[in-house]
Amino acid sequence: MSDSLAIALLSGGLDSATAAALAQEAGDRVIGLSFDYGQRHHRELQAAQRIASALALEEHHQIGVNLAAWGGSALTDRSQKIPNDGVKAGEIPSTYVPGRNTVFIAIGLSLAEARGARRLVLGVNAVDYSGYPDCRPDYLEAFQKLVHLASKAGRQGDGTQLWAPLVTWSKTRIVEEALRLKVPIQDTWSCYEGGETPCGRCDSCRIRNAALQDAGRPDLCV
Amino acid sequence: MSDSLAIALLSGGLDSATAAALAQEAGDRVIGLSFDYGQRHHRELQAAQRIASALALEEHHQIGVNLAAWGGSALTDRSQKIPNDGVKAGEIPSTYVPGRNTVFIAIGLSLAEARGARRLVLGVNAVDYSGYPDCRPDYLEAFQKLVHLASKAGRQGDGTQLWAPLVTWSKTRIVEEALRLKVPIQDTWSCYEGGETPCGRCDSCRIRNAALQDAGRPDLCV
Repeated sequence: MSDSLAIALLSGGLDSATAAALAQEAGDRVIGLSFDYGQRHHRELQAAQRIASALALEEHHQIGVNLAAWGGSALTDRSQKIPNDGVKAGEIPSTYVPGRNTVFIAIGLSLAEARGARRLVLGVNAVDYSGYPDCRPDYLEAFQKLVHLASKAGRQGDGTQLWAPLVTWSKTRIVEEALRLKVPIQDTWSCYEGGETPCGRCDSCRIRNAALQDAGRPDLCV
Repeated sequence: MSDSLAIALLSGGLDSATAAALAQEAGDRVIGLSFDYGQRHHRELQAAQRIASALALEEHHQIGVNLAAWGGSALTDRSQKIPNDGVKAGEIPSTYVPGRNTVFIAIGLSLAEARGARRLVLGVNAVDYSGYPDCRPDYLEAFQKLVHLASKAGRQGDGTQLWAPLVTWSKTRIVEEALRLKVPIQDTWSCYEGGETPCGRCDSCRIRNAALQDAGRPDLCV
């Protein structure tokens, strides 16, 4: 058994599942962490549980933090419409949830520090969702600097490493790695809507389907 | 009515109540935010409600985020004893909760961003609790840099300001300002224990009582 422990944030989507599988391949024992943040539906949390089971993670925690209490995003505010007309250059999409990644990473760091985990594994990706300010490399670098000052271990030069292996990858490359690592793609949930099956029309479904086509797996499209 | 809005984290203690009152004095309308993080007792949350009412805050939110799920501190792990033997130089006390301030500030930023608040008001103080890594000025400076990259407004040069007016003050100065601002000191709760009345023996009670003595108000000691 590896003595190197990692915490992986699991959204239930393809990217975070692939990042968790990469950490396992790198030799980490992985604890999954998912969030009930008041999202419109629980499909992605159900998916996160399936992924944790399929990847045989050490543990899987789910924690509630109700960011929907103050709305501000199409993903938490049911009065807003989910967009399906693409991500525009230089624009932040309405699906951006204020402070979400900062909150999730902060809670992940708490678990990592309490357990002495070496790495916090993030599926964030700056390419397809470049409209999100909190998915970019400069944001992660600034957070890493904060980690070095925020904790007991960090002050001693041994803080948790923020590890975002997919940050500069194309969605097609993520799909190719997921296939290579035997990530259960059919168990992941990317759709912004919460129907019985993925809608196939929202921006998230469309980006995922295009990458599956590119990777030669149209059979996995939704 | 002032058009400048601030979010103030309210722990129920004296420091955060004083910081919120300072923001009001500076002309901000203030929304309070408190956390049920799995602490040993709810005395401090009851105190936060009394303070929000006494200061006539615009709103007061309480949000749950169960950091006790993974323990790691005497304040969330009921199997650990509360210390009463003072804060030692160079040592991080057992009452330090892994990642707590980072999580609280992150959630406060989410609310600030959703409401367009100009400032996030923090009662952190580096003098009496210098053992806590996440109460120091360099930590707050690194978090401010992160804020500039984390949000819509931050990227546009208009991010939330982290405002920690007490960070370098002595506890006696905090008490003096609380008295000047008519903060309801008797409504605040600093004790680490959750008895009917404050214990008077834990480190937090002892530091508070010493400052009240210094400020010439022994009648307010617990």
